[in-house]
Amino acid sequence: MSLNETHQASITIKVPFYDVDSMDVVWHGHYVKYLEEARCALLEQLGYGYTQMRASGYVWPIVKMQFKYIRPAFFNQELTVSAFLYEYENGLGIKYKITDKQTGELLTKAETMQFAIDMKTKETCYLSPEIFRNKIKK
Amino acid sequence: MSLNETHQASITIKVPFYDVDSMDVVWHGHYVKYLEEARCALLEQLGYGYTQMRASGYVWPIVKMQFKYIRPAFFNQELTVSAFLYEYENGLGIKYKITDKQTGELLTKAETMQFAIDMKTKETCYLSPEIFRNKIKK
Amino acid sequence: MSLNETHQASITIKVPFYDVDSMDVVWHGHYVKYLEEARCALLEQLGYGYTQMRASGYVWPIVKMQFKYIRPAFFNQELTVSAFLYEYENGLGIKYKITDKQTGELLTKAETMQFAIDMKTKETCYLSPEIFRNKIKK
Amino acid sequence: MSLNETHQASITIKVPFYDVDSMDVVWHGHYVKYLEEARCALLEQLGYGYTQMRASGYVWPIVKMQFKYIRPAFFNQELTVSAFLYEYENGLGIKYKITDKQTGELLTKAETMQFAIDMKTKETCYLSPEIFRNKIKK
Repeated sequence: MSLNETHQASITIKVPFYDVDSMDVVWHGHYVKYLEEARCALLEQLGYGYTQMRASGYVWPIVKMQFKYIRPAFFNQELTVSAFLYEYENGLGIKYKITDKQTGELLTKAETMQFAIDMKTKETCYLSPEIFRNKIKK
Repeated sequence: MSLNETHQASITIKVPFYDVDSMDVVWHGHYVKYLEEARCALLEQLGYGYTQMRASGYVWPIVKMQFKYIRPAFFNQELTVSAFLYEYENGLGIKYKITDKQTGELLTKAETMQFAIDMKTKETCYLSPEIFRNKIKK
Repeated sequence: MSLNETHQASITIKVPFYDVDSMDVVWHGHYVKYLEEARCALLEQLGYGYTQMRASGYVWPIVKMQFKYIRPAFFNQELTVSAFLYEYENGLGIKYKITDKQTGELLTKAETMQFAIDMKTKETCYLSPEIFRNKIKK
Repeated sequence: MSLNETHQASITIKVPFYDVDSMDVVWHGHYVKYLEEARCALLEQLGYGYTQMRASGYVWPIVKMQFKYIRPAFFNQELTVSAFLYEYENGLGIKYKITDKQTGELLTKAETMQFAIDMKTKETCYLSPEIFRNKIKK
């Protein structure tokens, strides 16, 4: 099965004052929040948001995360944060692009990987649970 | 019973870069973290840290918090955050002073009030639970 | 002059996962961010956002802040954060209400006071600068 | 020249309550702060802290950051965060290990890369400025 446009979601962030550091740019650590908001939007769209995850008996901790910062972001700038599902069978892999909402200019690229942990057995599932794989195949 | 020096605790914070905003001073919201670290130190000293709170069957949400910001704090500045218990019978009231560690200059004053909630009944205890009052009287 | 409906603004916050603590409620310190977003919306509406503040030669640090937490807020809950200007002549005083967006139930009340500091003289203006007072009178 | 033990630094973090999420573990985004504290300690030890960076006419934004999360960290746990300089000629590359302070168990690995930007010309220096290279060679 190929991943398609239903497996992506975008949100808008207007950079708040409290995310900007003394170099007048967004502090690099705050981007982790932006990814999470885009990831939550994507997962809710797939019918597998955090609440549904827990209800399904699994938690999905982040096991890998990487960022490539290309251009800084500034106070009050409007950012588009897009999340694309690229792996769902052996974990939950998402790629992200952060662009300027007006110009489309690419600011940051990122990637996260999550594995399901069975809440009863505490075991990591290197094959994603069926309940999640079925959400994608629909 | 009068409150005394066993009912206070101090910690040191060295202002991290990520707490400083684009005006080159600590963003006012980050002080809430500094209070919490001093409060945790005080409660652990009293033998009633967060872990013991939960074990005792109560949670203690903050119901009131106030700040008076007198002077700004800067990157790398060492701050002393002192917490003083001023109320324990009808809630848990703490006053805070944040001073420059070197000069003693007063930077910020604050105050928090917490009430216990019985985790079983979900009821707010306007009289503090005996287990906590006994910690203070010791 | 009486303050009116042009002197208030509301925003919506959908509680993000990263603002929720291990008691499954929004950690009390994160509300400071919610206030700031509402305050920024109000000031921009008045034509005196942070960028215009700096351009006018003044910074406006928070000198007092207080919170009354009435009910907790939860992950994914939609909150309405309303900011009301109540003082502009001798400082910039704003009151806030945070309510559940669906039910209107009151969750948190808060208040902030700011004074202008003249960026050249470094002096605090206990009478608000004319440029700001004129924004309100319009 | 080979990098040695003067090119590494360790700090201790006692996990604060406000860094713990509703799964009762440190939220993955907060580790960025832990890295920064270890990085600042390392750079100060090398005589090239943030203040000295600015004074030297360069800023050093993070251009790449990656994490591998192996085991979760919990409230009140004491963590050792170690930073090792692995690249200084063509950028500033640091590797990090986060371990449990008591047991030494490895919890998280990470890596950051920074490039100097000349504050006058705004140009990125793919060869690190001499002033920084000299700090390392000493």
